[in-house]
Amino acid sequence: MDSKQKITPWEVTGEIVEGKNMAVDYEKIIKNFGCQKIDEAILKRIEKIIKKPVHHLLRRLLVFAHRDFDKILDLVEKNKKFYLYTGRGPSSQSMHLGHAVPFLFCKYLQDIFDVHLVIQITDDEKYLWKDLSLEDSIKFGKENMKDIIAFGFNPQKTFIFSNIEYSYKFIKNSLRISKHINLNEAKKVFGFDSTSNIGQIEFPSKEIAPCFSSSFDFLEKNMMCLIPAAIDQDPYFRLARDKAGILKEPKPATLYSGFLPDLKGLNTKMSASDTKSSIYLTDSDSVIKNKINKYAFSGGKDTLEEHRKYGGNIDVDVPFHYLKYFEENDEELEKYRTGYLDGSISTGEMKKKCIQLLQKFISNYRKARENLTDEIIDKFTAFSK
Amino acid sequence: MDSKQKITPWEVTGEIVEGKNMAVDYEKIIKNFGCQKIDEAILKRIEKIIKKPVHHLLRRLLVFAHRDFDKILDLVEKNKKFYLYTGRGPSSQSMHLGHAVPFLFCKYLQDIFDVHLVIQITDDEKYLWKDLSLEDSIKFGKENMKDIIAFGFNPQKTFIFSNIEYSYKFIKNSLRISKHINLNEAKKVFGFDSTSNIGQIEFPSKEIAPCFSSSFDFLEKNMMCLIPAAIDQDPYFRLARDKAGILKEPKPATLYSGFLPDLKGLNTKMSASDTKSSIYLTDSDSVIKNKINKYAFSGGKDTLEEHRKYGGNIDVDVPFHYLKYFEENDEELEKYRTGYLDGSISTGEMKKKCIQLLQKFISNYRKARENLTDEIIDKFTAFSK
Repeated sequence: MDSKQKITPWEVTGEIVEGKNMAVDYEKIIKNFGCQKIDEAILKRIEKIIKKPVHHLLRRLLVFAHRDFDKILDLVEKNKKFYLYTGRGPSSQSMHLGHAVPFLFCKYLQDIFDVHLVIQITDDEKYLWKDLSLEDSIKFGKENMKDIIAFGFNPQKTFIFSNIEYSYKFIKNSLRISKHINLNEAKKVFGFDSTSNIGQIEFPSKEIAPCFSSSFDFLEKNMMCLIPAAIDQDPYFRLARDKAGILKEPKPATLYSGFLPDLKGLNTKMSASDTKSSIYLTDSDSVIKNKINKYAFSGGKDTLEEHRKYGGNIDVDVPFHYLKYFEENDEELEKYRTGYLDGSISTGEMKKKCIQLLQKFISNYRKARENLTDEIIDKFTAFSK
Repeated sequence: MDSKQKITPWEVTGEIVEGKNMAVDYEKIIKNFGCQKIDEAILKRIEKIIKKPVHHLLRRLLVFAHRDFDKILDLVEKNKKFYLYTGRGPSSQSMHLGHAVPFLFCKYLQDIFDVHLVIQITDDEKYLWKDLSLEDSIKFGKENMKDIIAFGFNPQKTFIFSNIEYSYKFIKNSLRISKHINLNEAKKVFGFDSTSNIGQIEFPSKEIAPCFSSSFDFLEKNMMCLIPAAIDQDPYFRLARDKAGILKEPKPATLYSGFLPDLKGLNTKMSASDTKSSIYLTDSDSVIKNKINKYAFSGGKDTLEEHRKYGGNIDVDVPFHYLKYFEENDEELEKYRTGYLDGSISTGEMKKKCIQLLQKFISNYRKARENLTDEIIDKFTAFSK
């Protein structure tokens, strides 16, 4: 089997070369998409501003690419405002670990820069793309709002909204955007064809609208927007940047992360619909343990003896990859990396470490989710009233 | 020059055969569109219900085609409810006579059947199609609301709304519709191509949404809709009928009128952008007189002597055509028809009669328009609040 890597907002697969299970090639994406790499200079600049080490997702380059993030840093250095925009398509009731990453990173950005954050729930998108009733799309969206709020955002500066319920507020911007994107462009950027429904074709203007502060009454006009997102969403924001000029709006900046791999390997991103390859934020300790032990693709050798002798393949080891995302301590991470490579840390030990980390992360999250009250939720959706 | 007749929601031209100025061929439209002709049996049925002669637009077959209007009459006979839906795209500040016809007819239908009427102002459509700012589209729409209210609709049963301001209320239906129309269908029905903007491609779902009573809180679910409209809007409603089954909604019925010809001849419909060929509802008595005398295409002979001897061509005479729309008295109309044919009524007399009729109609309308207060207008838009 030989197939090219494919990255669209609706599909991510790594390049699959016969016999090999290769990771998504992020270098190639950066080149194809024409965005910029996160480099040492940028990390140093952030550290100079915040006077502490940057987040591990940045220092490990799991957030690896950007567009104009340096301009955002210019604003910060000049004490000028910008805002954050991120979103989620409510494809099912349970969010998984892969969904958690961008929100964790977003919360970090809100914390260090103390800025407004708008979170779009694309219930309309999910309805248009999936075999899902309108009612369920809205219902999943409402549940996901709580899932997201549980990450601990600042209620004073965070606005979370459903596209279906809120779009009347940004319909003007959405129309302005729609008018300036023709079918040809949309086909090229998003791969629409004659079977696409007309709601899908118009949807990009809905995801693009929040890139401009004029979509929100409570933000100043012409405020720059920073979008932390997974790299597969770049087509939307590239188009937003293309159209910013004609719309007389500032180009939004972006910060891109890669994909948390699913349990089966590094070639695809975690999918909400595959229960055997995803860890959900609702999974119990025993389910997490069972999934990692049973399904997580390992870079270890066939026998413990061989492993001790030759060491494991860290590049394809899924549990180690999860450590990179969830073990904040660099020394601890390095210990597991070198130990696995020289064989002193076994596959069983690597999985045990991973299980402990995820159990801790998810149980903390679960408590936060359970403690949400309607009052707290109202604080986040209040701007829409 | 030889070109086929073309009828889309955005363009109407008659078949132009060398040297001839032919009218739009309505028989051909009925055949191509696959709708039904208004016949004597239907007119008799209405007269039996309302116990008086039908409106002159019906008895002269200026309203000439329909879809399922007989089912609406079934409902009326069984004392069951339906509602009316019509609309307007605010392309300029002034409405002209051609715009008046469907509203006059709509008011008649509301009067005889005593039913709810919803009027959609497609400010979004005009913005997407025309070289017009969003602000102007909305402003023209607001002015047009007053223009429409001035026709004397029942404030208790009429709801007029701007798509841009109200669409959040029917966004759910609009999404449901969008999901079931693919690009291929939309291209076929509306002639979209790669230069169409993505807002245009999605727009049909906005014009279709009010065909279903579930778009309005104040209407019962599954109430049938009757749409009196000009025939060029049929593509929308044909598509609405196609999709009604999958959306579990009743198919809307329609009643179609032709186009009030412009002053220059019967081959095109009156256009708001051509001041020399249109009579506006804001035109003064002297402007009306001047336009009819100077621009109205006449079926008269070159000299009065020839006219007296051979008579005029009533079929292409624009002033007579206007009499058909605005002279309610059949005997009077017949007098002008036979008189023009036998030459006893001159072109000057025909134009004079036309001028008097239009001056009277427009001055009455102007008074009603001037007497509108904000209070009255609020009554019509109250459902949206």
